[in-house]
Amino acid sequence: MPAPETRYDRRLAEILVHATEVFCKKGYEGASMRDLSRESGMSLAGLYYYFESKERLLYLIQKHTFATIVQRLKTRLDGISDGEQRVRIFILNHLEYFLANQAAMKVLSHEAEVLKNGFASEVAAIKREYYRICVGLLEDLKRERGLHFSTRIAVLSLFGMMNWIYTWHNPRVDAEAESIAGEMGDIFLRGVMASGKTRKER
Amino acid sequence: MPAPETRYDRRLAEILVHATEVFCKKGYEGASMRDLSRESGMSLAGLYYYFESKERLLYLIQKHTFATIVQRLKTRLDGISDGEQRVRIFILNHLEYFLANQAAMKVLSHEAEVLKNGFASEVAAIKREYYRICVGLLEDLKRERGLHFSTRIAVLSLFGMMNWIYTWHNPRVDAEAESIAGEMGDIFLRGVMASGKTRKER
Repeated sequence: MPAPETRYDRRLAEILVHATEVFCKKGYEGASMRDLSRESGMSLAGLYYYFESKERLLYLIQKHTFATIVQRLKTRLDGISDGEQRVRIFILNHLEYFLANQAAMKVLSHEAEVLKNGFASEVAAIKREYYRICVGLLEDLKRERGLHFSTRIAVLSLFGMMNWIYTWHNPRVDAEAESIAGEMGDIFLRGVMASGKTRKER
Repeated sequence: MPAPETRYDRRLAEILVHATEVFCKKGYEGASMRDLSRESGMSLAGLYYYFESKERLLYLIQKHTFATIVQRLKTRLDGISDGEQRVRIFILNHLEYFLANQAAMKVLSHEAEVLKNGFASEVAAIKREYYRICVGLLEDLKRERGLHFSTRIAVLSLFGMMNWIYTWHNPRVDAEAESIAGEMGDIFLRGVMASGKTRKER
C-alpha cells in the first residue's frame, strides 16, 4: 500500500511534470535552471535548495517514472495467475503510462545516457527491476506452456514494439492504449506461443 | 543496376562516415563544421564549398542511409515470390544494415526532427517509400494467407522491434544480425500468421 500523499509529495510531482516539459522542449543540455524555475513557478533559489542541480532533477524524473510504472504493475498483477493474462497486463500497463506521459517517455529515451555515477546506477537498478519483472513473466509463460524461445530477444522485442510508439502515435489517427495493447499483445503472444512445444529448428 | 562508383562518390561516402561519427559522439547541436573538418581530413573551406552547411551534411547522411537500405532490399527481393520469405528478407536486410552502421542509426533516430523544410520533406519522402514497401509486403502476406490484422500496428510494431536494438545490442553477448533476424522473424510472423482466417474477436 503506498503511503498517503503529502502536500510536499504533490508539489514535488508537479515540479517534476514542469521540468519534464522543459527537458522535452529544449533537451536536457539546452534547458537551464532558470527555464525550469520559470516553468515551474518555483524561485531559482528554491529550485537549487530543494533539487541542487539539473542532473538531480533529471534523476528524479526517471526514478519517479519507473517507480510509478512498477507500482501500478504490481497492483494490477496481484491475484492474476494465468501466464498469458499477466503478459497482457504488463503490455497494457506500459502503454497506458507511456501514452499518458509522452513527454516523460521522450525525455527518458533521449536523455538515457546523460546521468552519471550514483544517479545513473540508481536509475539503472530500477530499470533492471522492471526488465526482470518482464523476464519473469515470460519465463513463467514458457514453463506453463512448455515453450521454447530466447527470453532475451523476446523481452527486448516487446520493449521495442511498445517504446517505439513515441515516434508514431498520433491521437487523431491511432486508437487508445487499450486497443493498441490488444493488437500488440496478439502479435507478440501468438508469436511466442506459436513457437510451440518443439525445439526451435533454427 | 547502380551506376559504377566514381572516385568522387567514394570520397563523399567517406566524408559522410566521418560526419556520422562526429554527430554520433557530439550530437548534431554540439558538433561544429570545424570538428567535421578535423575528423574527415577535409579543409574547412572545402567542407563549406562542397556541403554548404552542417544541415546539408545531416541531410546527406539520412538520404544516403535510406537509399542504400532500399536499394539492397530491392535487389534481395528480386525473384522471391513467397510472402513469408519476403518479410523475412525485409527483416534481415534492415537488421544487417542497422548493426553494421550503428552510429548512423543512432544519428537517424536522435536527430530525426532537426532537418527543416526542403531537406526534411525529401528525407520524409524516402522514409515513406521504405515504410510503404513494408506495408506492401504485409498486405501481400494478408492476401496470400487470408489473414486479418491491422497493417499499421503490425508494421510499426515490427519497426519498433528492429529499431530498438540500438539501445541494447552488445556484440559481446548478442548474436549477429542473421540469428536475431530469425528470432524476431519467428515472433513477428508467427504472431501475425496466427491471427488466422477468422475475423479478430477484439
